Amino acid sequence: MKITIISVGKIKEKYLNDAINEYEKRISKYAKVENIILPDEETPANASKAQEAQIIDTESKRIIKAIPRNSFVIVLDIKGEEIDSVTFSKKIEEFFSKSSNLTFIIGGSLGMSSEVKRLANYRLSFSPMTFPHMLMKVIMLEQIYRAFKILNNETYHK
Amino acid sequence: MKITIISVGKIKEKYLNDAINEYEKRISKYAKVENIILPDEETPANASKAQEAQIIDTESKRIIKAIPRNSFVIVLDIKGEEIDSVTFSKKIEEFFSKSSNLTFIIGGSLGMSSEVKRLANYRLSFSPMTFPHMLMKVIMLEQIYRAFKILNNETYHK
Repeated sequence: MKITIISVGKIKEKYLNDAINEYEKRISKYAKVENIILPDEETPANASKAQEAQIIDTESKRIIKAIPRNSFVIVLDIKGEEIDSVTFSKKIEEFFSKSSNLTFIIGGSLGMSSEVKRLANYRLSFSPMTFPHMLMKVIMLEQIYRAFKILNNETYHK
Repeated sequence: MKITIISVGKIKEKYLNDAINEYEKRISKYAKVENIILPDEETPANASKAQEAQIIDTESKRIIKAIPRNSFVIVLDIKGEEIDSVTFSKKIEEFFSKSSNLTFIIGGSLGMSSEVKRLANYRLSFSPMTFPHMLMKVIMLEQIYRAFKILNNETYHK
């Protein structure tokens, strides 16, 4: 079993990197973790809508190229399905029955193209609220770790 | 304007403390922040339902005692209202028109009593998913910071 995480842009904040490393280490007890960090495009201050669309397009093409073949693709999308942690763990189990490689995609700071969303086998929302995409990565990894704990009937404190 | 955060239990993970400190520092540009961390009760492995209820009761009593007088009380509750970030910023503005002190309460690892929930002026949910209450604190502080940025028409990258 393998989990591939595709995200856009390096993380500058040490506390976020430390949190990500910690949860990746914990998940690696249950599945191989591959962390693909794609280069982001610089967004100029006061970027026009056209400039923003161009950035989204460039970053999205990189994402599509990076998706491993035959993996089951889960895209984080604020308009995706909202589920609780137990349902999420059951989904993870179901997805692994379809492919041994699950790819989770987090878009860049401006989001991702509808093309990426169309490629997704599942669109997941954690919250109607908007979070920095880097904090979103921590939230997602924690929830994947929690899913494995639930599936293995292991206790895990809230 | 003042924001009081009441939570239960010290945070051991450095990356979470660093994240909390960072967001508190950023929020302090807009409002005074008071961080009240109450002692938690140790939960024995395989605690009975009665033991758990006792822990929730003890911790909840501490929470109630710690709520500043005349503050507007917002309780984080998985069954609370789910709203987007812009709506949340408008709520913050509305709450500040009712009291100059907003108190946000995050329960301990087992949650909080219905008495605390009844005291709440507003019950807020960030997600149907269950998160460690310490990560919840980071998520909440980020969102309060984001609310101030939105209310002040300041750009803030996702």
